Amino acid sequence: MRTIDWRGGEVVLIDQTLLPSEERVLAVHTVDELVAAIRRLAVRGAMALGAAGALGIALAATRASEEGIDVDAAIDEAAAKLRGSRPTAVNLSWGVSRALSARSGGPRAILATALALMDADIAANTAIGGRGALLLYGVKSVLTHCNAGGLAAVEVGTALAVIGTLHATEPLQMAYVCETRPLLQGARLTTWELAKMKVPHRLIVDGAGAGLILGGKVNAVVVGADRIAANGDVANKVGTLAHALAARRAGIPFVVAAPESTIDEATPTGADIEIEERDPIEVLGFGGRSVAPVGTLAANPAFDVTPSDLVTAIVTERRVITPASSSAVADEADARRVG
Amino acid sequence: MRTIDWRGGEVVLIDQTLLPSEERVLAVHTVDELVAAIRRLAVRGAMALGAAGALGIALAATRASEEGIDVDAAIDEAAAKLRGSRPTAVNLSWGVSRALSARSGGPRAILATALALMDADIAANTAIGGRGALLLYGVKSVLTHCNAGGLAAVEVGTALAVIGTLHATEPLQMAYVCETRPLLQGARLTTWELAKMKVPHRLIVDGAGAGLILGGKVNAVVVGADRIAANGDVANKVGTLAHALAARRAGIPFVVAAPESTIDEATPTGADIEIEERDPIEVLGFGGRSVAPVGTLAANPAFDVTPSDLVTAIVTERRVITPASSSAVADEADARRVG
Repeated sequence: MRTIDWRGGEVVLIDQTLLPSEERVLAVHTVDELVAAIRRLAVRGAMALGAAGALGIALAATRASEEGIDVDAAIDEAAAKLRGSRPTAVNLSWGVSRALSARSGGPRAILATALALMDADIAANTAIGGRGALLLYGVKSVLTHCNAGGLAAVEVGTALAVIGTLHATEPLQMAYVCETRPLLQGARLTTWELAKMKVPHRLIVDGAGAGLILGGKVNAVVVGADRIAANGDVANKVGTLAHALAARRAGIPFVVAAPESTIDEATPTGADIEIEERDPIEVLGFGGRSVAPVGTLAANPAFDVTPSDLVTAIVTERRVITPASSSAVADEADARRVG
Repeated sequence: MRTIDWRGGEVVLIDQTLLPSEERVLAVHTVDELVAAIRRLAVRGAMALGAAGALGIALAATRASEEGIDVDAAIDEAAAKLRGSRPTAVNLSWGVSRALSARSGGPRAILATALALMDADIAANTAIGGRGALLLYGVKSVLTHCNAGGLAAVEVGTALAVIGTLHATEPLQMAYVCETRPLLQGARLTTWELAKMKVPHRLIVDGAGAGLILGGKVNAVVVGADRIAANGDVANKVGTLAHALAARRAGIPFVVAAPESTIDEATPTGADIEIEERDPIEVLGFGGRSVAPVGTLAANPAFDVTPSDLVTAIVTERRVITPASSSAVADEADARRVG
């Protein structure tokens, strides 16, 4: 099923806080329930939150219409609540705006817009998957980091779309999944998705990536991206850079799978990307249990920046950009546009 | 205090299974108690186990002498028990042999030999610390991985001897400590040792190392080694290689601090070092709590191999070897012997 969807007049979503130990679908009947689900990260990931924003407006319009109350007022209230639920998630606000653009057509038009947005998201990721698989055709073993999967999108994902399409085309022998400390998205979510896709995989600690890559066990590294600068520098979950360095040394491709919306032409280089510093408690503990001496301090950068010259290819829904063999992404957009 | 020592006719040791939450000194009165402590890893690390082996023979001889029973028979029984407690720990067996070599002199001579062995270990590590600090003089910020500290030795350690001596000479601004998944020796033990040494430090996840290094936050990487091949390839705790790759890219020194005994001239290159594959449960769980979906498989290599061309210097108690600027360690031993 989709990570988030519309079914029987409600929003349904996989409660990601329970994964991997429990797979529960949450049926959300009101905007307040949806806001609560967003706040506690039951749904997460840029594209999934975009869908949540749009579906939330559809939910508000539908409920108000059923109850015979003012649809416009209900929509406005819902938009404010949804946008406020995770203020830094730009896609959430973007999804809300997209749904609002259809408000003159009433609840059905809003819902149609939300569903179209979700279909477009899936189509984009499917295109990323196909384009990436074409690029990496013949690869037998991949390594990925964090969760650039369907759980962060409506369905399919980005890096995991590439891996899934590769495997469907010609079976992969192995996908190595980095656990991705501190929050273990790889261990909890990516393993779960690869099992669903029946891709043979092994979980590894993040530090084992370089050794496996230089040991010849990995043919390609495939990851997602949080932000891509205009010069092709890639910000992604902390730990990604080490795999890129190892891939370069081993002479294997380091491929970034991400939608066009991830490319931020307003950011010239990776040096201009501010690295979010998260709560030290994530590093100092593990599953609520402290692992370091009392009073220990921690540094906890959420992302790292892989310089563009280490990036073999950035695969989007429209094109394949090869920053390692040139110096800019934005400049060569026209020349390399393939779709 | 020393990690392991002789006090009041007994062996005393810091129970490392309780660190960092509790700092308890275990007084060991019999060989059987010592064997039990070794088995449950209350004492660990090559050099500390060497001391344990030697002190164990002294303990057996002392007890037998006090109790008026056959000292020789007691020593033989103790040697077999100690060697069998961790059969793959070559230093443990070596420590036993060293003590046995003094058996003709009786309990006091055996104890003197054990204490001399420990003093030699401390002197060697102190020399490593001084030589490494001289090499890295002026460095303000270092990064280390795993625990190459006093807890793995009798006292002082190797990489942590370098860091401690650097800090004592001219204060370091920061030591970044990689937590070292899966067993978290960095989080549990290295932080504890650096706090004792009053070295300012921050715990980080292993994947954050490369980003900090390329971000200019680290002036040098200093690690220990489990085995060094004749060509200078270095096997060390999994995760080390990624830091070496990042150090090379950033143009900062990657320094290995290890005693001469770590250099294995019988092993031509890192490719000849078999990488121990440990129990997958270490990766799949954490403190007894599972983090991945039921049925997930894991790969768990305990070590990785850093190619010699990435190693700026290997610092031993006798010399500084610079494999990155030449191609062999053993061949140039004479030319580079400085102490």
